Amino acid sequence: MKLEQIETPAALIDVARMQKNIARMQAQMNTLGVAFRPHVKTTKCIDVVRAQIAAGARGITVSTLKEAEAFFAAGIRDILYAVSMVPARLPRAFALRRQGCDLKLVVDNPTAAAAIAAFGDQHGETFEVWIEVDTDGHRSGITPEQDTLLEVGRILHENGVKLGGVMTHAGSSYELNTPEALAALAEQERAGCVRAAQRLRDAGIPCPVVSVGSTPTALAAAQLDGVTEVRAGVYVLFDLVMHNVGVCALDDIALSVLATVIGHQAEKGWAILDAGWMAMSRDRGTSKQAHDFGYGQPCLLNGTLLPGYVVSGANQEHGILSSTGDGSQADETPDITQRFPIGMKLRILPNHACATGAQFPEYHAVSPDGSSVEWQRFHGW
Amino acid sequence: MKLEQIETPAALIDVARMQKNIARMQAQMNTLGVAFRPHVKTTKCIDVVRAQIAAGARGITVSTLKEAEAFFAAGIRDILYAVSMVPARLPRAFALRRQGCDLKLVVDNPTAAAAIAAFGDQHGETFEVWIEVDTDGHRSGITPEQDTLLEVGRILHENGVKLGGVMTHAGSSYELNTPEALAALAEQERAGCVRAAQRLRDAGIPCPVVSVGSTPTALAAAQLDGVTEVRAGVYVLFDLVMHNVGVCALDDIALSVLATVIGHQAEKGWAILDAGWMAMSRDRGTSKQAHDFGYGQPCLLNGTLLPGYVVSGANQEHGILSSTGDGSQADETPDITQRFPIGMKLRILPNHACATGAQFPEYHAVSPDGSSVEWQRFHGW
Repeated sequence: MKLEQIETPAALIDVARMQKNIARMQAQMNTLGVAFRPHVKTTKCIDVVRAQIAAGARGITVSTLKEAEAFFAAGIRDILYAVSMVPARLPRAFALRRQGCDLKLVVDNPTAAAAIAAFGDQHGETFEVWIEVDTDGHRSGITPEQDTLLEVGRILHENGVKLGGVMTHAGSSYELNTPEALAALAEQERAGCVRAAQRLRDAGIPCPVVSVGSTPTALAAAQLDGVTEVRAGVYVLFDLVMHNVGVCALDDIALSVLATVIGHQAEKGWAILDAGWMAMSRDRGTSKQAHDFGYGQPCLLNGTLLPGYVVSGANQEHGILSSTGDGSQADETPDITQRFPIGMKLRILPNHACATGAQFPEYHAVSPDGSSVEWQRFHGW
Repeated sequence: MKLEQIETPAALIDVARMQKNIARMQAQMNTLGVAFRPHVKTTKCIDVVRAQIAAGARGITVSTLKEAEAFFAAGIRDILYAVSMVPARLPRAFALRRQGCDLKLVVDNPTAAAAIAAFGDQHGETFEVWIEVDTDGHRSGITPEQDTLLEVGRILHENGVKLGGVMTHAGSSYELNTPEALAALAEQERAGCVRAAQRLRDAGIPCPVVSVGSTPTALAAAQLDGVTEVRAGVYVLFDLVMHNVGVCALDDIALSVLATVIGHQAEKGWAILDAGWMAMSRDRGTSKQAHDFGYGQPCLLNGTLLPGYVVSGANQEHGILSSTGDGSQADETPDITQRFPIGMKLRILPNHACATGAQFPEYHAVSPDGSSVEWQRFHGW
């Protein structure tokens, strides 16, 4: 199907940009001498993940067991479920392992570790578990010097569970915006996770894998001594938040929302789009960054940026396109009804690729010649 | 299935609360002497809509043609597609009408009106179109005194299109929070829409329907002289934004997200939940209201509110539950790990029922005895 024929709103992936993003990250990993395990929560799309694996990725990271089940069904065995395990989900994880999925679980507390050990003992299953390490205080995990680290390690190691490694995610990197700060956080993430592994090993507990990563720290890391693998997700499509963090150019962003102009409020300088928050998502991740892109950055159908315009507001199925009023428009500011006539199609770059993609049942993967194919993505848990 | 057995995260509808909300709105409409046409974009769920119709609703309002197609397939004929029509969508609307769907379209500009007239003429179809009126300046529509109103009316009326009526939506009601302000806006919405209808009639253009509504103005209206029908959506479930607007109590909110405690950061006073922004949505609609509920208000599994706690942060699949620190906790502030142990299930009231529901493929409709059934909802456009 040609781009002009796709009904709006629709989520478009620019395949050439995506392939460039994949190649860039894989090259960085190769240079750093580490394996790469992409986080597939960004796209939940087997076509995208196949491209990541074809470029050299080894295994995947998932955020839900539904992702694990879907990607295992599509032929991927090596899967890290990177959200702290709770006992009630063990039967579902067990079923996957019994089907041959090399599913690794994550814990950051003794309660869950003991529950996994007990369940494994009861069902004759050797689970593989990684311990989540907190290296930047933003979310879950055990800090490298906490006694709990060794306590959890011992519960696993001494009760028939394979302690596969340690993993951390420096998600606070999303709040930074200089190369120096990102490089410093990448080193903090590396050093903290390596330290945690070393403490386990010093206590006689095996810890083969040291897994770190977030898109900004993965791209900013200068060296990853002691690390065995890196995880990152949003790099594959990038978005306006990542642009503000400083790790991609606007024309690296591979996801956009195709929208149609459906009306105007000429006196206010508004064009009304059929891409509201249901299409763009409610993510306003750039609102606290140096450049606030509202609900998204408009581009022409061919991808040309429209500086000086922004999606400034959104209702469920209505977006408001207006001038930023900062003098950055490339054209003489014309009447909004003539600049954006009814029926005109635009592409809107999103704040957050993971959130915007989740609003759509499918992507339209657009090739450089303007043709497109549908790539399914899944929804729910 | 019993509540305890539902996998988390999950979207729950408290059926008794929903029925109470439906009965309350229908009683208000009966008192005001107007027909009621619920907006089904809130739930996109046929089971909910059947309950609305059983209570007395006449026809439905939709925000996408996918909703129109799905609800028509489920047996509902009288459907208002309440987003300004663009020419490219006419074949899809035409197909619905040819199948027997009494689909009404909406326009607010001469370009779209002329395109509908031309398409109808070409295909021998008499479309029914309503003109969108702008009564509060928040989004689309033609203001009652604009010349464009009569221009659009004439284009339709003189070119073989049935002008079915005028409609308006005072969405700015979401920004108010006193009964007086809501009543005043309800009157502004009523008067503006009635005035638009009168101007059309005075010009010799028929305008049988006068349709107004938003949940807050529908509930606040003291009289609706000249109005024939009201539309509202979120009232059926309510949410924290509506609570702050002042049109529902917290225990009227019929939608909650079932979540499990998956970890802690005890020193920070955090319990980590498996309901992040993918489950709650990124909607932070209460952030600019008098009471900011973060990403949601926690309750016990039985629905008992937990004052003094809030979901203060969210990553994709992680929510952070913490104390509000405002002294409103009903209990002595205990250690977070004991108050919310790993595996504990909670129900989180959402900011915005339309946005949170859209994150889930299905609702679990929970009866007063704690049993539940699945109600499907649909996704995409």
